[in-house]
Amino acid sequence: MQIQVISSVNEASSTRFHHKTAIIVDVLRAGSTIVTALAAGAAAIIPVETVMEAKAAQQPGDLLGGERFCRKIAGFDLGNSPSEYDHAAVSNRRIILTTTNGTRALQKAARADYVLTAALLNATASAQAAAALRRDIVILCAGYNDEFAAEDGFCAGLLLDRLQLAGPAPVELDDFGLAMLAFYRNRSSYALETLASGVTGKRLAKIGLQRDIEACAPIDLYKEVPQLLGGMLTRMPI
Amino acid sequence: MQIQVISSVNEASSTRFHHKTAIIVDVLRAGSTIVTALAAGAAAIIPVETVMEAKAAQQPGDLLGGERFCRKIAGFDLGNSPSEYDHAAVSNRRIILTTTNGTRALQKAARADYVLTAALLNATASAQAAAALRRDIVILCAGYNDEFAAEDGFCAGLLLDRLQLAGPAPVELDDFGLAMLAFYRNRSSYALETLASGVTGKRLAKIGLQRDIEACAPIDLYKEVPQLLGGMLTRMPI
Repeated sequence: MQIQVISSVNEASSTRFHHKTAIIVDVLRAGSTIVTALAAGAAAIIPVETVMEAKAAQQPGDLLGGERFCRKIAGFDLGNSPSEYDHAAVSNRRIILTTTNGTRALQKAARADYVLTAALLNATASAQAAAALRRDIVILCAGYNDEFAAEDGFCAGLLLDRLQLAGPAPVELDDFGLAMLAFYRNRSSYALETLASGVTGKRLAKIGLQRDIEACAPIDLYKEVPQLLGGMLTRMPI
Repeated sequence: MQIQVISSVNEASSTRFHHKTAIIVDVLRAGSTIVTALAAGAAAIIPVETVMEAKAAQQPGDLLGGERFCRKIAGFDLGNSPSEYDHAAVSNRRIILTTTNGTRALQKAARADYVLTAALLNATASAQAAAALRRDIVILCAGYNDEFAAEDGFCAGLLLDRLQLAGPAPVELDDFGLAMLAFYRNRSSYALETLASGVTGKRLAKIGLQRDIEACAPIDLYKEVPQLLGGMLTRMPI
């Protein structure tokens, strides 16, 4: 099984996803928010790019969620903090979600045979689900402002670590994957510190969202694996 | 002191080098060949992009060196294997060198205040020399075919490790630098294996140039630091 890791959305050309399983990684915060919402019982997440698209897609009962410049959007029900997406708020609801980087990453990967999302919160479950699909894998780090984000690279390395253990097929990594696997292994006991040390983490801390970093740092809190199907993210059947 | 790491030549816009010290990293093989040649007594290395430019720049006594597709160029005196650049071959000679990625990287960085080159062979000396110049630093990984190359990222991490020890100023890393530092630290005892595991290393091994990988893997064999001045790489005065 070949696994490629792409450093940021900017680097992703959609042709690289043909006949593959894509895993989109956006740790701070869309990927963590999405899995948290599905674990809390949300019916589906519908990722869209713009605020206007979000409003146009909303049907009765749907919630609007998302952020611009790390802040909740005016008039929306929810921001992009995982802690907002609890059972009371989202159970059995559809959520239209617009975020800066994660949504673009999902759109880039749309030509893949399967599109999953992963965060630290569901890393092992995502790796196992991807391995079971028996395709070559592309891990796309969403990044921040078109640049590589440390927290996404760290999560990519964690996924590679778990993918090496997940299946019978030997795993072949590209050069960027080799680097991310070693990055994860060197910092595996310091997930929270690693998230806090990157540009996104520093920015969240600066605007008082340190608690969001803490909410996104636990590894394998959830077993849910979000899968993109027909424009919606839902729990992949286990 | 701020330090940025750029993952491949493709990612480098020349504006990022203004008022900075650039360190160009091309471990397999141009950067290793350049420092080996200067340590063996070469008077200067003149990097050029094309074979035609190399022939036009040649003056009486100059040697032509370089590769295309990892092979020596027809009619040239030397290829791109460090072992060819010994005292008998290069002492007091100027070498016109054309390589696939290293030369383009040097040209991208030309607007920096200082341009140095580094490889594993002279990593600590390069880091110390760069720190002494008291500018912010950009480490440019040359890469392979416009993609990130593991050996260059590993060397970038080694440089960051040494830069953290080199000077009185605290070092501030970007997200890619954080990842490369951890990559190096996880693999620091396995330099040769890391070089051999990347795409460039595999390609060199496949065409029988395993010895070149071995020649490029030792850390801190040399104290020479190549510096680009007036289009020529010469030993930086210590």
